[in-house]
Parts: sequence; C-alpha cells; structure tokens
Amino acid sequence: MEKLIKLEEKIGYKFKNIEILQQALTHSSYAYSENTPSYERLEFLGDAILNVIIAIYIYIKMPDKNEAFLTNIKAAYINRNFLQSVGENLQLQNFVIAKGLTNYRLDQIVEAIIGAIYIDGGMKESEKFIKKFLLKKEIEPLLDYKNFLKTIVWEKYKSSVHYILYKEEGPPHEKTFYIKVEVDGKQTIGKGMGTTKKEAEIKASIDFLKKMKLI
Amino acid sequence: MEKLIKLEEKIGYKFKNIEILQQALTHSSYAYSENTPSYERLEFLGDAILNVIIAIYIYIKMPDKNEAFLTNIKAAYINRNFLQSVGENLQLQNFVIAKGLTNYRLDQIVEAIIGAIYIDGGMKESEKFIKKFLLKKEIEPLLDYKNFLKTIVWEKYKSSVHYILYKEEGPPHEKTFYIKVEVDGKQTIGKGMGTTKKEAEIKASIDFLKKMKLI
Repeated sequence: MEKLIKLEEKIGYKFKNIEILQQALTHSSYAYSENTPSYERLEFLGDAILNVIIAIYIYIKMPDKNEAFLTNIKAAYINRNFLQSVGENLQLQNFVIAKGLTNYRLDQIVEAIIGAIYIDGGMKESEKFIKKFLLKKEIEPLLDYKNFLKTIVWEKYKSSVHYILYKEEGPPHEKTFYIKVEVDGKQTIGKGMGTTKKEAEIKASIDFLKKMKLI
Repeated sequence: MEKLIKLEEKIGYKFKNIEILQQALTHSSYAYSENTPSYERLEFLGDAILNVIIAIYIYIKMPDKNEAFLTNIKAAYINRNFLQSVGENLQLQNFVIAKGLTNYRLDQIVEAIIGAIYIDGGMKESEKFIKKFLLKKEIEPLLDYKNFLKTIVWEKYKSSVHYILYKEEGPPHEKTFYIKVEVDGKQTIGKGMGTTKKEAEIKASIDFLKKMKLI
C-alpha cells in the first residue's frame, strides 16, 4: 500500500480507487494464482487511449505533415522500446506484482497505467500523464524504414509485407544481394540491392514507399 | 453545398465549419490537382478516435471478457469491410469528391468523417456518430482465426505471422496439407492439417492461439 502511494507521487496522479492502480501493476503470473485481475484488460484500454492522445497531439502540432509522416511519428511514440524506456525511467520494475518473473514488459505496464488513470480520472488525466512522461520527450521519426513500411502497410491496408531474395551475385565474401518487397493485395513492387540483405531490404522498402507516395 | 447539407442531415451532425466535412470527402486524386487538402489526415485522426471509442465501449460493456476477446471484437468493428458497409449504408459514394475514380474506399471516408466531427465538435460528438452508425449494429467476434491471429500478434508483439507448408500427402485430388505457423520472436509453433491449405492454416492458427492462451 505504501508502495502504491509512492508510485502515485512518482506519476503525479492520486487515484480515487487505488485498487485500479494495483491491477495495472499485476502480471498474469500473479493474477492467475491469486484469482485477482491482471493488467491485461487495462493494457488493452490504455493502448487505445495512448494511441488517440498521440494522434490528436501530432495532428494538431504538425498541420503541414501528411498522413504517412504522422503515422511514422505516432509509431515512434507507441513503439515498444520507447514505452519500455518510459517504464524504466519511472522505475516501474520496483512496483510490478508478479510471480517468478524478472523480465517485466514495462511497456505493457505503462499502457495499463494509462488505462487505469482513464478509468479512475477520465481522458484529461490520462492525457496529462502522456504529456508529462511521453510527449515532453523529443522524438525522431523512425528511421527504420522496414518497420515503418510494416506499420503503414498494416494501418492502411491491413496487409503483410514480404521480402524476397531474387538474385545473389559475387563471391561469398563480396556478395551483392537483390531483394524485392511485395505487399499482399498490391501490384507495386519495391526493389533494392546491397552488400547485406538488411541493406537491400531497407532500400527495397524505401523504393516501395516512394512508389506508393508514402514518403 | 446543398449536397453537404444533405449529408449533414444523413449523419445527424451539423458542422460549424462545413469545409472540414468537405475535406473529409475529398480524395487525393482531386486534392492534388486542385491543390486543396485531401481526407487523408482526417482519416489518420478518425482511425485513432474510432479505435478508442470502440475500445472504451467494449471494455465497459464486457467486464468478464479477457484482452484477447476484446481485441477480437474491436478488430471486427474496425474491420475494413465492416466500415465499407457502414459507408455504403450512408451512400457516401454519392458525396465523394474525386477525379476519375469510381471504386471509392468508403471505409477511409467513414474514418475521415469521424475525424472531421472530432475536429469540429469534439470527442462526444464523434462518439455519438460511432454509436449511431457502428455500435448499434450487432457484431460477432471474427471467426476468421487467421485474421485474428495476425491482428493479435501485431497488437501484442508487433510481429508477423508465417505459414509454412511442411508436408503434403496423397494423390493430387485427395491431398492432405500440413501447415505450421510461426511468429517472429516466439518459440511456440502452431500446427494444423486439412484437405485445403486454408483449412490447415486456420487449424494451425487455432493451435497457436490455444498454446499461447489467447483463446
């Protein structure tokens, strides 16, 4: 209980119902054995709240940027690694309620806390948390074009991305790889070459994104 | 202009700034040539608004359902085909502003209208639209387990799903297919067999979902 009050101070929000904060910290490993609710439903809710607050924020803040750019920035903010780092800064690992786990998914806990704040205090309060701990951090658009392509193809078309190695040239230590990228349900193909497969894949992704006018 | 007023009556919301509704109907094919904004940014915003309204609604309405079930129901409501049907019921094809297109993505227009209502009237008004035109429809959880697996794997792990045919048996007209499904970054494998590849893939998806305790 003392611990929970300490966490409230850290996040700067006082819960009317402290049990909802407790639930946001309870991993299913503990929840199942003690027959108490886990954070998973709150994570589901918090994910959607986080998504919309970020979307509204960047929509308003960046009136000249197109949808593809906004999607890219949003992906950076809801990125698992970024949220994990937010959780680490808040030292959430000290507050997780779990059984026999040490490798906590703090990104999920961050989302669950956002969900808990929403349930307890409404959209404005969860927005405050997001502004304080996520949006005040400067963030760059993801430069990982493979990840960006995967994200935007999912968001726009609910389709998957496939990379195909269609040619290899040169001796083993000096190979050149030729990769094409295809998207289910799309005729456009992106192509790229490189000295590593990864490089060729990134170039193919950029080619595809340009052809589709997404960058 | 008369057309826009007719559409306002249809959707039951009167815009303070009618230009934002016009933008929500403007396809990029027209927008580029006339140098006027297209619906794409509003679609980006509306997508996030729709997502959160649905998430909050089913979170509250289904207190006993787990995260996987909620994710499945949400996917059914934001499903492209479902949104397309909402657009068709509203006969949005008669209001789209485009050049040389006839095959309109009404699902995108529905999202753009939700974004436009949010900008013009706030969250409560967009919620009203969503309740009236989407949530009052009864919807079944998606029974398409391939699609469900793809969705939940993306939402939970930001990973892709791969189906691999690892065995084929029998003569051409009586084949049995053996499929395994893998998820990037996960050790668990789902397996299924069937007289068609699709059937085997669905069974493999169900096997995977069960092993991961997602259904």
